[in-house]
Amino acid sequence: MKKILVVGSVGIDDIETPFGRVERVPGGSAIYFSLAASMFSKVNFVGVAGTDFPNDIIELMKTRGIDIKGFEIVEGKTFRWSGRYHSDMDNRDTLLTELNVFENFKPKLPEEYKDSEIVFLANIHPELQLDVLNSVHKPELVISDTMNFWIDSVPEKIVEVVRRSDIFIINDSELCMMTGESNFLAASDRMLEECSLLKAIVVKMGKFGIYATDGKEEFFLPAFPLRQVVDPTGAGDSLAGGFTGYLAKTGDYSFANIKKACVYGSITASYSVNDFSISGLKEFDLDDIESEYDIFKKLTTF
Amino acid sequence: MKKILVVGSVGIDDIETPFGRVERVPGGSAIYFSLAASMFSKVNFVGVAGTDFPNDIIELMKTRGIDIKGFEIVEGKTFRWSGRYHSDMDNRDTLLTELNVFENFKPKLPEEYKDSEIVFLANIHPELQLDVLNSVHKPELVISDTMNFWIDSVPEKIVEVVRRSDIFIINDSELCMMTGESNFLAASDRMLEECSLLKAIVVKMGKFGIYATDGKEEFFLPAFPLRQVVDPTGAGDSLAGGFTGYLAKTGDYSFANIKKACVYGSITASYSVNDFSISGLKEFDLDDIESEYDIFKKLTTF
Repeated sequence: MKKILVVGSVGIDDIETPFGRVERVPGGSAIYFSLAASMFSKVNFVGVAGTDFPNDIIELMKTRGIDIKGFEIVEGKTFRWSGRYHSDMDNRDTLLTELNVFENFKPKLPEEYKDSEIVFLANIHPELQLDVLNSVHKPELVISDTMNFWIDSVPEKIVEVVRRSDIFIINDSELCMMTGESNFLAASDRMLEECSLLKAIVVKMGKFGIYATDGKEEFFLPAFPLRQVVDPTGAGDSLAGGFTGYLAKTGDYSFANIKKACVYGSITASYSVNDFSISGLKEFDLDDIESEYDIFKKLTTF
Repeated sequence: MKKILVVGSVGIDDIETPFGRVERVPGGSAIYFSLAASMFSKVNFVGVAGTDFPNDIIELMKTRGIDIKGFEIVEGKTFRWSGRYHSDMDNRDTLLTELNVFENFKPKLPEEYKDSEIVFLANIHPELQLDVLNSVHKPELVISDTMNFWIDSVPEKIVEVVRRSDIFIINDSELCMMTGESNFLAASDRMLEECSLLKAIVVKMGKFGIYATDGKEEFFLPAFPLRQVVDPTGAGDSLAGGFTGYLAKTGDYSFANIKKACVYGSITASYSVNDFSISGLKEFDLDDIESEYDIFKKLTTF
């Protein structure tokens, strides 16, 4: 089993969906990711929160075996985000963003984190992603994620991160935005050409599933068939957590195993969206998910 | 091999996509459908065109073994449609619609058509779809298709058609519009509940593929991975043509075979969008497509 170092955001969110509204719930890319990945493997956590961050979540992380030596709690308020989803769940309005203690965050890596075999750069300013990459020794696998906000504001920095990554996870519209291509398959090809270190690209398509390619082979996986999505917040981070966790658990980074990791990532994401905030991930149990793996098999076999 | 009776529109189109512009090219749901289905099976064609409809297309239909006794050519101009696709190819603006000879069309079925084993009701006014259903003897399988225009204007008539269908083909946003559900899986469940004769529903999701269910089993198939779509016009009709053609060729209407029919339908559609109007379908050769079937297998296996 490999160790995963994750750096990303930690937040307190207000979320409104057609199924209700929750206030001051835990959120942030690194929180979702680490709770998901820790079901499969060992996680070294790097992030920052204020003194208002709920202690029960820190306790939950400890219970899950997540190493929180790199989780700084500093005087002040945690990063705040507030959003409202449209009835189709595909679009949302951001109502509030407050950086708070995140504003002056510089990731500090405990010495033993530097030998983590896998580095996951969750959604966060690409400068911070690069800081972490510059601090680790010699990871076997670097996986990066991002979002439209950084593509709009510092596109060249994201390309720098992706050029130093083995796997890039991104959603289809953001990939098209980043490459200027209107077809996400052509956009994937372009990204693989421009970033020669990239072993694979994993394209998230929300309710339509995942596309992955290493430039030679291609793979499509539908989303797990859910009649109801209660809260899509963190779905992508949870997917990345299950995906990376499975790769860490198996230590096999072949494209054949990346396909399987997509399946486990999708199952993880399906738990995440079943309830608000991280509540869905609490229900997640590794013993249960083989039946979901079989559902995916049936769903795609002809 | 079963015979397919198809009724639908026949048109002359002007089409503009990012790849160019063509004028006065053949189009219409029944034209795309029959050229696609005829690669697999025998087609009995019902439709109307004016005297301006290009004779070479009628010759092509004959070459493909399509029975055109039910293809009326009447004095006047053929139905005209003109559209422009956006750069993402997912949306289009309709620039012109002229009903012309279509306005007073009443489908007249040659006596021998009435024993067709399979009836395909292509996109056309649902009243005309019902006329045809009332004229045939005892088809083994009725498959219906529609579009947003009819869902907006005569929703209760479409439900009447679907209630008399064994398989309903529709795209995801139209299905949601029709049922008032925002989740296309929940919308499929609802439709199967409300239309008790329905054996299966096939949901087209464009570049994201196909979803099919019989209420017990579910199936997802990605779209054939195309880097370039030259003209999406008729993609859904071509898909339905390949799908229905394969069911007719095999005479097996089980859900297991419906899945395979989805694969053949998708391959057919991928040829259709490779060129403007029906030109892509001319390139389609049954001997070639087993390699595309294998590509689909690889694309979805983990």
